[in-house]
Amino acid sequence: MKFSRNERISVLTKILLDNPDKIINLNYFTEKFNAAKSTISEDLVILKEAFSKFNMGKVETIAGAAGGVKYTCGINKTGAKDFIKNLCGMINNKERIIPGDFLYITDLMYNPLVIKEAGLILASVFADKGIDYVVTVETKGIPLAYEVSRMLGVELVIVRRENIFSEGSTVSINYVSGSTKILQTMTLSKRAIKENSKCIFIDDFMKAGGTAAGIINLLKEFKSELLGIGILIDNVQSKEKLIKDHVSLVDYNGFNEEGDISVTPSKFIQNL
Amino acid sequence: MKFSRNERISVLTKILLDNPDKIINLNYFTEKFNAAKSTISEDLVILKEAFSKFNMGKVETIAGAAGGVKYTCGINKTGAKDFIKNLCGMINNKERIIPGDFLYITDLMYNPLVIKEAGLILASVFADKGIDYVVTVETKGIPLAYEVSRMLGVELVIVRRENIFSEGSTVSINYVSGSTKILQTMTLSKRAIKENSKCIFIDDFMKAGGTAAGIINLLKEFKSELLGIGILIDNVQSKEKLIKDHVSLVDYNGFNEEGDISVTPSKFIQNL
Repeated sequence: MKFSRNERISVLTKILLDNPDKIINLNYFTEKFNAAKSTISEDLVILKEAFSKFNMGKVETIAGAAGGVKYTCGINKTGAKDFIKNLCGMINNKERIIPGDFLYITDLMYNPLVIKEAGLILASVFADKGIDYVVTVETKGIPLAYEVSRMLGVELVIVRRENIFSEGSTVSINYVSGSTKILQTMTLSKRAIKENSKCIFIDDFMKAGGTAAGIINLLKEFKSELLGIGILIDNVQSKEKLIKDHVSLVDYNGFNEEGDISVTPSKFIQNL
Repeated sequence: MKFSRNERISVLTKILLDNPDKIINLNYFTEKFNAAKSTISEDLVILKEAFSKFNMGKVETIAGAAGGVKYTCGINKTGAKDFIKNLCGMINNKERIIPGDFLYITDLMYNPLVIKEAGLILASVFADKGIDYVVTVETKGIPLAYEVSRMLGVELVIVRRENIFSEGSTVSINYVSGSTKILQTMTLSKRAIKENSKCIFIDDFMKAGGTAAGIINLLKEFKSELLGIGILIDNVQSKEKLIKDHVSLVDYNGFNEEGDISVTPSKFIQNL
């Protein structure tokens, strides 16, 4: 059975998008499409061009025996700015203010339409850095962290707040929350991370960064390194952060008596 | 700026895959590609054919003023069977047996390559049923449930084990675990689900189904209905389930003294 170029282009697009950061050998495609290598190579030239013109990420061909084609996620900068501006508008709604001066953002954190876009922006920051794991702490940041791990094609690691029987031997550390000064525990199965791994930490919200600082210490127990921190909403009322560097998408600066919530695209987004 | 048919086909494929179950008006594409409606319609005929030939789901055009094009996820049955067979092979490894006769499967539950495929199979069961929410209970099933919600284009709802300050007023119910007979609590923010919604429950592992039965009761508090249950691994040692119907992908039937783990594709998968 033979297929038209248009059909191959559609299927190739799907396969590449489904396999970020994986080198796919061209033989896989020549067999799937019953086509010559030269034909597939021409298809890939077209794809490279289309992905580049529409800011859909990068398609590269890698020469040699272990070579093939690789897709890396990427963003449309204007689209990303517009998305974050819209997200700020969605957050700035006084009905989100709940007793205890918290902001209800759970609906956004669990909405695939929001998380897909936010995850793509954060993943593109850490793409091509040779990340082994995306790490998060349960619960609210899990969809975002999963989305980033999906886009980077690496495993997700979820640190737990308490010991879980079904995870075998665990490593636990204590850490002090930067904002409330309360002592807390985080726990991770010994099997979860191989030694000498490169990790990033992804979370939905950051205040003083106590959790992120805890993650750095936890990763030391696994002889592994934290290469970066990506946060959706940064509470910039907490000026003194316990960690040095992080990338955030939205700056949150509290709300006034009228219920106007101060929420703006972060410097990182503004400078895209 | 004009684009070639091949370029449009690649970008159209990505946009459809990114927007499952959403009707996209053709005007969106005519503007994006600076092309006539008839041209886009021809592109979509090619896409329909390609998606159908390669079992990538369904592309439909919907006539009328509110019409457009809609993509619904779908599976390649042979591919799904092969994937589940491989997954059973990955689970059947005696190093996964941990003290307390638990099975360590956390790495699989957090691996996007596994969860993407498993999520797609479960999503395709419930596609086109007009689902409003995908519901899960923290923590291990969250990536799977998120993936299903992503494929269905609906919001995810994560039920918590304890009360969370940042979620406002909550509804809590008590339920008895079907296997351990221990009384447990589940909690959900009042804002999480609108009344009269249709939900499905997705989880990584099921024993007697106590959690799923609890979810049915919790949803009643929201005047909402559970339309279906999708589980990755069904512990078939628990023969008397507390719930009537569920779809599972893998049957787990314990392990013997040699450490052979009995794990097979479920009847649902075998009958695909």
